[in-house]
Amino acid sequence: MPKTAAILIIGNEILSGKVEDANTPFLCRELRELGVEVRRIVVIPDEVPVIAAEVVGLSGAHDFVFTAGGVGPTHDDVTVEGIAAAFGVRVLRHSRLERLIRDFYKDRLHEPDLKMAEVPEGAELLSMEGLAFPVVVMRNVYIFPGIPEVLRRKFGVIRERFRDAPFYLRRVLVRGGEGSLAEHLRAVLREYPALLLGSYPEWNNPEYQVKLTLESRDPDTVEGAMRALLARLPAAALVRIE
Amino acid sequence: MPKTAAILIIGNEILSGKVEDANTPFLCRELRELGVEVRRIVVIPDEVPVIAAEVVGLSGAHDFVFTAGGVGPTHDDVTVEGIAAAFGVRVLRHSRLERLIRDFYKDRLHEPDLKMAEVPEGAELLSMEGLAFPVVVMRNVYIFPGIPEVLRRKFGVIRERFRDAPFYLRRVLVRGGEGSLAEHLRAVLREYPALLLGSYPEWNNPEYQVKLTLESRDPDTVEGAMRALLARLPAAALVRIE
Repeated sequence: MPKTAAILIIGNEILSGKVEDANTPFLCRELRELGVEVRRIVVIPDEVPVIAAEVVGLSGAHDFVFTAGGVGPTHDDVTVEGIAAAFGVRVLRHSRLERLIRDFYKDRLHEPDLKMAEVPEGAELLSMEGLAFPVVVMRNVYIFPGIPEVLRRKFGVIRERFRDAPFYLRRVLVRGGEGSLAEHLRAVLREYPALLLGSYPEWNNPEYQVKLTLESRDPDTVEGAMRALLARLPAAALVRIE
Repeated sequence: MPKTAAILIIGNEILSGKVEDANTPFLCRELRELGVEVRRIVVIPDEVPVIAAEVVGLSGAHDFVFTAGGVGPTHDDVTVEGIAAAFGVRVLRHSRLERLIRDFYKDRLHEPDLKMAEVPEGAELLSMEGLAFPVVVMRNVYIFPGIPEVLRRKFGVIRERFRDAPFYLRRVLVRGGEGSLAEHLRAVLREYPALLLGSYPEWNNPEYQVKLTLESRDPDTVEGAMRALLARLPAAALVRIE
């Protein structure tokens, strides 16, 4: 079975429109490239019971859950507490993380910084070359900070562990409205029911009006569906294949 | 009670990283400005049972639900069907929408375009000056197309109906790590427990390291908390108040 994932963004700043979430688009692109199917993205506030309930649901329904946000030293950083509550375990200060944080801050350490050494009881630390601080994993929940630069660096170091069978993707750019294509698309899907077929209108694009995406884990499905589509499309409608 | 909202984005193209979701940041900013509290954002695939289950949950738990995506004429446009299933009603072709679509497309109409005239039974149409096509509302669920230009235009015309008591917001930009601030922030929250207090580290910002946001529907709470915070902050830490 191909692997599935959910992304859980924890942060009032996203919900209130103060900050645009750059982590979700990054994780979606990365996971797709790795062959992992993201099935759900959820953004919730910095509230322990809300985080706990969401982690229970997402963790049970997906192979991997990636959280971002809420792991700093201040009052609104409650992700670890929420994940611990989800699994019914305590929050512990991890001695290896504490040592890393003390070594990093040295005499600039403030006591609240040690909150970042806290993990749900039973969490693993993934240490890899190139990572100053390990990635904390609780069961199938990978806990990332919300700062995009840090999340990208940490994810980049561990990304290969998620690699699955790839998706094959072709794009067909088309002139004319979606309504003129709908019947052809349904016909292709009848012939290739397992095809992932997307149809996306572009507004104000002078070159083409609809982008079609043909996608599958099976390259023969994509190529066969591509031939079936091109056989049906009026020649004047085709702008380009990518 | 202040009004709450959820945003439901329906689209495989977002989950698979092909398209970045521009609608959520727009709606979050708009709703905050209107005084509406967005409590949850969910992104799900173009699948009727998934949409139906999510709409049931979000509609029951929030004053307003805003959906974006999945309302075109092709096979992957199943939002209306999902919302109808959520409320246990049929999908009907709405005669007024059908007339508008026929008048719009004229001899360029393809039969599948009339799929865009379908609504859940019992849906209302919100017609306003400046709107070529009405906004479709089913109970408390406002159904928007995924094309950002169209969503913005439609939301812009109906936005005032959502206006609630405003949020007051001040920002304090600070030098030094979050760990050096955490204790002061907790002290301010003890004095002003209803304050919405955010602490956001900035990476690689030469001017300041943390942005604090003080927010409330009560301006006196914000101003009092601001005074309490400034009285505690070391003078050297303060960069700017906005």
